[in-house]
Amino acid sequence: MDSVTFIGTVAGFCTTLSFLPQMIKIHRTKSAHDLSLFMFIIFAFGVASWLVYGVLTGSTPIIAANCVTLVFCGYILFMKVKYGK
Amino acid sequence: MDSVTFIGTVAGFCTTLSFLPQMIKIHRTKSAHDLSLFMFIIFAFGVASWLVYGVLTGSTPIIAANCVTLVFCGYILFMKVKYGK
Repeated sequence: MDSVTFIGTVAGFCTTLSFLPQMIKIHRTKSAHDLSLFMFIIFAFGVASWLVYGVLTGSTPIIAANCVTLVFCGYILFMKVKYGK
Repeated sequence: MDSVTFIGTVAGFCTTLSFLPQMIKIHRTKSAHDLSLFMFIIFAFGVASWLVYGVLTGSTPIIAANCVTLVFCGYILFMKVKYGK
């Protein structure tokens, strides 16, 4: 793996795994009142667009990172709808 | 602008501007209790790494999007520390 791909992989790991503590927090507290619903709707659409961009440019880190982020983000969105009231 | 750059720009706009409703929400409610501090710390580090990746690959959408996201994310982090208790 060259250094550019390595940095892209580190970046992808961080922006993807960052959603894990948020998921755990909502699970523990059963509260998502302070989270913005619009943030996660717009963010999910953006991540889906990054995924298309990654496919079109052939960038493996962008594809891998955004696939996983989309799943995490979708799950937080689901929990926001469930616990956000 | 070719179609690949256009999709990257749309993606960048969405993942960047998605933080705006979250910022506005914290401003209005003065509450960030449900937000995960670790999420925004790890996310900010990831965005900084994407910025380096964008510079190294010469990708204008990645550079532009992550510059602005870093500022927004840093500001939410600041407000989380201020209002998160």
